[in-house]
Amino acid sequence: MDQSAPGGSGLEPVTALLDGPAGAIADAVNGRRVSARVVAEAALARIAAANPVVNAFTDVTAARALSEADSVDAAIARGRTLPLAGVPYSVKNLFDIEGVTTRAGSRINRDHPPATADGPLVSRAKAAGAILTGAVNMGEYAYDFTGENVHDGNARNPHDLDRMSGGSSGGSGTAVAAGLSSFSLGSDTNGSIRVPSSFCGLLGLKPTFGRLSRSGTFPFTPSLDHLGPFARSARDLALIFDLLQGWDDGDTSLARRPAIATRDTLDLGLGDLRIARAGGYFTERLGPDAEAAMKIVADALSVDRVVDVPEAHRARAAAYVITTAESATVHLDRLRKRAGDFDPATRDRFLSGAMVPTPWYVAAHRFRSWFKASMARIFESVDALIAPATPFAALRSGTATITLGGVELPARPNIGIFTQPISFVGLPVAAVPVWPQGDEGLPIAVQVIAPAWREDIALRIAHSLQETGVARAPVARQFRGKT
Amino acid sequence: MDQSAPGGSGLEPVTALLDGPAGAIADAVNGRRVSARVVAEAALARIAAANPVVNAFTDVTAARALSEADSVDAAIARGRTLPLAGVPYSVKNLFDIEGVTTRAGSRINRDHPPATADGPLVSRAKAAGAILTGAVNMGEYAYDFTGENVHDGNARNPHDLDRMSGGSSGGSGTAVAAGLSSFSLGSDTNGSIRVPSSFCGLLGLKPTFGRLSRSGTFPFTPSLDHLGPFARSARDLALIFDLLQGWDDGDTSLARRPAIATRDTLDLGLGDLRIARAGGYFTERLGPDAEAAMKIVADALSVDRVVDVPEAHRARAAAYVITTAESATVHLDRLRKRAGDFDPATRDRFLSGAMVPTPWYVAAHRFRSWFKASMARIFESVDALIAPATPFAALRSGTATITLGGVELPARPNIGIFTQPISFVGLPVAAVPVWPQGDEGLPIAVQVIAPAWREDIALRIAHSLQETGVARAPVARQFRGKT
Repeated sequence: MDQSAPGGSGLEPVTALLDGPAGAIADAVNGRRVSARVVAEAALARIAAANPVVNAFTDVTAARALSEADSVDAAIARGRTLPLAGVPYSVKNLFDIEGVTTRAGSRINRDHPPATADGPLVSRAKAAGAILTGAVNMGEYAYDFTGENVHDGNARNPHDLDRMSGGSSGGSGTAVAAGLSSFSLGSDTNGSIRVPSSFCGLLGLKPTFGRLSRSGTFPFTPSLDHLGPFARSARDLALIFDLLQGWDDGDTSLARRPAIATRDTLDLGLGDLRIARAGGYFTERLGPDAEAAMKIVADALSVDRVVDVPEAHRARAAAYVITTAESATVHLDRLRKRAGDFDPATRDRFLSGAMVPTPWYVAAHRFRSWFKASMARIFESVDALIAPATPFAALRSGTATITLGGVELPARPNIGIFTQPISFVGLPVAAVPVWPQGDEGLPIAVQVIAPAWREDIALRIAHSLQETGVARAPVARQFRGKT
Repeated sequence: MDQSAPGGSGLEPVTALLDGPAGAIADAVNGRRVSARVVAEAALARIAAANPVVNAFTDVTAARALSEADSVDAAIARGRTLPLAGVPYSVKNLFDIEGVTTRAGSRINRDHPPATADGPLVSRAKAAGAILTGAVNMGEYAYDFTGENVHDGNARNPHDLDRMSGGSSGGSGTAVAAGLSSFSLGSDTNGSIRVPSSFCGLLGLKPTFGRLSRSGTFPFTPSLDHLGPFARSARDLALIFDLLQGWDDGDTSLARRPAIATRDTLDLGLGDLRIARAGGYFTERLGPDAEAAMKIVADALSVDRVVDVPEAHRARAAAYVITTAESATVHLDRLRKRAGDFDPATRDRFLSGAMVPTPWYVAAHRFRSWFKASMARIFESVDALIAPATPFAALRSGTATITLGGVELPARPNIGIFTQPISFVGLPVAAVPVWPQGDEGLPIAVQVIAPAWREDIALRIAHSLQETGVARAPVARQFRGKT
C-alpha cells in the first residue's frame, strides 16, 4: 500500500514517518494526524518484508505492538500527550520483555522461561507511549564486536548486506538503519553501542556508567555494562535518554544523581565549548576512512587542539582483563554444564577468563581508578574530546585480519580499540556518523566524549553536527521509502 | 620518681593520669594542673621501663614527643584549649610518621626510606594536641590474629605475659593495656582492632568502612581495610573518633558524608534502643568465656531477642577469598623479588592468594553486596546487635589448635570467626571488654554492632556498659601505678 498520499486509516504518509525521526512520529500521533495503530501496522509490515533479508529481529512482538498502539490511541483520544506516542522501537534481546525469553544471543538461554515482567527501561519507554515491536539480534552473551551470531545468523548491515553490522548490539544497528525501528535500546560494555552506530551510520549514546538502570537485562560484565539508545537523530537520542533516567532499586551500580534534561540544552549550539581531539593512542591505528572522518568533524567543530590521553593502551588492556574474568564469573555454571552449547569462540574466551588470577583483575581495577582520575583531569581544561569510534568502516562479514599502522592484526577484537578505553572509565559518549566517501560510500562514526554525567554536552555537539549536515544518519537507501 | 604527690614540674599525680582516661589528661593539661611535658616524660619513662617486657613499641619517637609536648604547653600558655592536650598515644607501625620508616610489621619495608609526612589521622591527632610516643608492633603486613611477629618478636599480653596480645594490631593492644599509651591507632581488616581489644581487655572502635581516611598507611586489603582507635574508655573512643573524621583526597574509598559528633550523644543512655543478640553462626563455636561474656552483656542490656544472621559462614569464607587474593596483589612484586624475607607463614598465604582465580574473587564481592543488603534489612528492626568478639579469651602464645564445638581447629585463623563477617560489610563495631572470671581471670570482649554510619549507637551502648561497671578496661595489674 502507498502511504505517501493521505487515505486509509492514516492521515499522514506513514512511510516518511518511518524513515524520519522518532519525534516526528510522536508529534503526528499526538496531533492525531496518524494513529499509533497505523504506524505500528506499517512498522510490523516493514519488519515482515525486510527482516528475512537483514536478520535484525529474533522475536517480533506483533500482538503486543498492536495492543500498545491501541492503548496509546485511546489515551490520546482521552486528551493525553505522550512523548514517544506511537514510536516503534526494539530492544537488544538481553532486555527482559514480559512473556519473551531473554536469550542474550545464546542458545542456552532459550531454555529459560519467558521473562515475567519488562525491565525498567522497557517500562519507561512503554509509559512514554513507545511501541515495542520486538527483540533484536546480538552477539552471543554480548562478547562481540561484529554483529555475527552462530545461533541466530548474522545481523546484516543495511548499507551493504555483505558487511558486518558491528556488535554486539548488531540487531539494534540493523533495525534502525533499515528503518524497521525508529530507535532501539542496546548495551555497551566495550563499544557495543558505538561500534554498530559507526558501521550502520547511526547516532548512538553510551551514557555515563551508573546513569541508567540495568535491572531486567542479562549481564555481560557488571563493572562495565552500560545501556543506551540508537536513533537516527541526536534530538531523538536526547528525547529518549531523558525519559529513561530515574531511580531503580535493582541496579546496585546506579548512581543517586538527579536526572538531567538534555533536550532543553540541545539547541544551545557549540557556544564556547572547548573541544579537543584525543591524541596519542587515538591517532595511531586509524584506517583512511577513520582519519577522514576525524578531519571532517574536527573541521566542522574548528578543533585545533590535540590532548594526549596517557596510558590509553593500558586502559584497553585492563578493560580486557576485567571483561574476560568478570564475564567468566557470570557464566561459570553454564561453562561447567553446557559448554557444548556455546559458540566455541565465545566459550573459549570465557574459559580463559575463568583462569585469570585475581591479582591481574585487582590491578586492572586499581588502574581503572587511576585512569578515571587522569581523564577527569583532562576534562578540567576541555569540555569534550573527539576520537574515532572504529578504526575503519564496516568490514566484510567474515573478515579475519586487518592491517592497521602496517601491522596485520586479528579483525574482531581490534574493532573496539578506540571505544574500550572510554567505556572502561564510564564516560558518556555520543557516536556521530559521517560519510567520508559521500553517499555512495560507507558511514563511519566519531566519538564525542564528555565528562562524567554530562551527556548533555555530547548530545549538543552531536546535534550541532547533524544540524549543519556534517553528520547524517539516513535509513539505508535499499530500505528507504518502503511501505 | 613518685608523681603521686604534687611536686616537680607537675601539679597533678602523673601516674594516676597515665592509668586513667585520655580525657582526664587533656583536662589536666588544659587546666594547667600538669604540663604536657611532664606527661610526655612520664609516658616515655614508662615505655623505657616496660617495653623490654611487653614488646609493644618498635619505634619510640621520644624527641618528637617532647617537642610536641612543648608546643602544646606553649599553645596552652597562649590561652588555647586542645581536645587531646598532652595525651600520649601510639600508632600501629603501618601508619606513616614523618621521619620514621613505615615497616608494616615486615623486614622488607625496613629498607624503605622514612615517611616524608605524617598520615592524615596522625596529623589530626597532633592538631588536637596528642603526643605521639612511637610506632607499635603488629603482625607481618597485618595478616595475623595473634600479635606474633617473627621479625620484631611478639607483642605480649599485659594481663598474662605468656599469652597472645591478639592481632594484627597487637602492639596497640599491648601499649594501651600496659598503660604505655592512653590510646593507640590500629587497623582492622578482618578483626585486627577487635581481637586485641578482646585479648587485652580494651575498648576498640572499628568505624564504618569509608568513614576514616586510610591515606598515609600501608595497605593490607584495600576493599576491607579500616582504621580506628583503641582506648580504655568508650568516652575516649568517642573523643578520638570525632576528631579523626573528615575529608581527605587520598583515599578513594572514603565516603562523602558529614562527620558525626558521637560525644554529644554518649550520655543519652540506652533509651529505647532495640538491641538483639546475633544468632545462628554467632552462637555455635563459643568457648565458655565467650558464652559467659555474652550472658553478662545480654543481661546488662536486657537483651531477650535473638536475630539470625543468614549466611554468616559464607561471609567469613568470602572475606577470606577477598583478603588473600587482594593482599597478594599488594605484595606481588615483593613476592617475586624478596620471597625469602617474608615470614614463611605469611608468604605462603600471599602466594596462595596470588593464584586465586578471578571468578572466586568476583563471586565473593557479589556475595558481599548481598550480605550487606541482608544486614541492612536486619537493622530495620534492631538498632544494634551484640556478638562475641573472639570465641575465647587470650590464648597462650604458640597455641596451634583449639577445640570449638567439639571440633579441633587450627587456632590462628579461627580467632577471627566472629569479627570477619562484620568487617566484611563494613558495619561499625565497638569491642567492649568484660571479665567473666572476675579480676583474677582474663578479659574478653563482646562486639556491639551498629548500622552503617551509626558509630554513635555502638559507642553509646559501650559507654553505658562501662558506666554501670559491666565493662572495664583497666591498665593490667602488673603495670598499674608505675611511675
